[in-house]
Amino acid sequence: MRSSSTSVVLVVLLGSCAAACTPAASAARDPLPSWKEGASKKAIVAFVDRVTRQSSPDFVPVPARIATFDNDGSLWAEKPVPFEVFFAFDRVKAQAPQHPDWKTQEPFASVLRGDLAGVAATGEKGLMEIMAATHAGMTTDEFAGIVEEWIASARHPATGRLFTEMVYQPMIELLAYLRGNGFKTFIVSGGGVEFMRPWSECVYGVPPEQVIGSAGKLKLETRDGRLVLVKLPAIDLNDDKEGKPIAIQGRIGRRPIAAFGNSDGDLQMLQWIAGGGGARFALLVHHDDGKREFAYDRADKMQKLDVAWDEAIARRWTVVSMRNDWSSIFAH
Amino acid sequence: MRSSSTSVVLVVLLGSCAAACTPAASAARDPLPSWKEGASKKAIVAFVDRVTRQSSPDFVPVPARIATFDNDGSLWAEKPVPFEVFFAFDRVKAQAPQHPDWKTQEPFASVLRGDLAGVAATGEKGLMEIMAATHAGMTTDEFAGIVEEWIASARHPATGRLFTEMVYQPMIELLAYLRGNGFKTFIVSGGGVEFMRPWSECVYGVPPEQVIGSAGKLKLETRDGRLVLVKLPAIDLNDDKEGKPIAIQGRIGRRPIAAFGNSDGDLQMLQWIAGGGGARFALLVHHDDGKREFAYDRADKMQKLDVAWDEAIARRWTVVSMRNDWSSIFAH
Repeated sequence: MRSSSTSVVLVVLLGSCAAACTPAASAARDPLPSWKEGASKKAIVAFVDRVTRQSSPDFVPVPARIATFDNDGSLWAEKPVPFEVFFAFDRVKAQAPQHPDWKTQEPFASVLRGDLAGVAATGEKGLMEIMAATHAGMTTDEFAGIVEEWIASARHPATGRLFTEMVYQPMIELLAYLRGNGFKTFIVSGGGVEFMRPWSECVYGVPPEQVIGSAGKLKLETRDGRLVLVKLPAIDLNDDKEGKPIAIQGRIGRRPIAAFGNSDGDLQMLQWIAGGGGARFALLVHHDDGKREFAYDRADKMQKLDVAWDEAIARRWTVVSMRNDWSSIFAH
Repeated sequence: MRSSSTSVVLVVLLGSCAAACTPAASAARDPLPSWKEGASKKAIVAFVDRVTRQSSPDFVPVPARIATFDNDGSLWAEKPVPFEVFFAFDRVKAQAPQHPDWKTQEPFASVLRGDLAGVAATGEKGLMEIMAATHAGMTTDEFAGIVEEWIASARHPATGRLFTEMVYQPMIELLAYLRGNGFKTFIVSGGGVEFMRPWSECVYGVPPEQVIGSAGKLKLETRDGRLVLVKLPAIDLNDDKEGKPIAIQGRIGRRPIAAFGNSDGDLQMLQWIAGGGGARFALLVHHDDGKREFAYDRADKMQKLDVAWDEAIARRWTVVSMRNDWSSIFAH
């Protein structure tokens, strides 16, 4: 594990990611080897055949083969909190020596005590303060460097793995399978766009220009005689719920024909793509494997799968059971 | 001319643009046949060689070969006003029967009288009112249909040509040349993104997801039981001047290595790309051909080339003389 992760990082730093680091898709004849035979896999393969076979009445030309993927909980795990929250907490700790007042000031005091419940008690307002303190005030280049360093070394508190080792192998295969069939794959995530881009190309094969995420405002400034873009503590795009179709139209400019999510935050994206004409594919990943991953759905406080689940059943979207449909979960 | 334009439109409507309508690049051995031999052409070819030859110390891997192009005045003409203004005026005229008060109400009264000076007298505020009245209030799909219809039939008042017949053949060749060398080409324009996307793929070979432009806010709504995105009369992104590097970072997420513009509105984009490490290419199109196109630069009121020109000279960027460097101007 260690050596492959180190090479990921080196490759990111060297900027030659695409050549040296290919996502861990199998070269075997079955393009989806981690997907067990069953209704989900069958639905995926049937859809791809339907839109790519020239003689199909639902044939879609290559440029229109756009697929969008949620990230947290859809491409990698998101428990106990979205991994970007761990990043933000680590940044609070790293910056704490310059902010002695944080020791007694919420939400920072709870972060420094490692008190997740205490942070949660500060609500949306507290989280926004943490995001502003950790995601703004530096240049975009500086922030990318911080993310690269963190993603190369930080580990999940429960599994002890690097976070990039907690991406889902079946979804990595699915991304590669779609691309192999002429699809352009995009990430459309509520997570921070500048947090995902430094590693999305290496880990998912999705280049920065195909990563859409929540974003803060930027300001062009001259520092030390050089132009830089400074990250401001103000939100420019909240890429969640109805923000997803809006961002898809704003950034991609055409309606995807396939979308993949796992929670109510993805509902509007799935509705948006499913509402277009022709063949469409909407899929939800259901976290029902408490042994190999985490089990949560309707009752979850943070990443609820509830309304979107009902809609999926009503509209016959594909609902993937991680327990039954996936022979392996993590890519490493 | 008529038949090729009709096929462009059909192809846009059929949604199979990329297959049927290829930009008018020559298949001859010289990939830039409309560029006369000289310093500008030499600089372009030398740069492409420098970043694509494996043995070059400035070699750039394919994923990082990002090039950004301004549109108005850089890829197609922009006189006497940016062509989107003609579109807006035509929309005012088309909507006038539903707005009897416009006959006496500025800036609409001037538009209906065909009085360009009268519109200009209403200033920025007047133009914003026209944009709000013509670019908002409908769904994104409805707007795209209106643009498709207009671009297929509206003609330039002075030349009598379709506006898509006023794209620059040398720039079409340049776009294709760069793509043939592994570049991903983007448009980064102050013009409206939803105005450019319906025809950018056919005319420039640039797909909607690689078109960045000024944009209004969108709202997700249910109409007649279907989800739609409604265009609101509020600006989300002003993609001009310092807005260009900001939009490039927000949408593309990495710094282009080449950029192409023609006015002071492109200065910050050129500075931004030129300021990165490694080989960079910055180019300005100088409109100095009053016979075959339009001649304007420092003294122009609307599309000034002044500060950016000085900067280009100081930094040895490439300044293209349309009169001396291009053997032909328009693509049709």
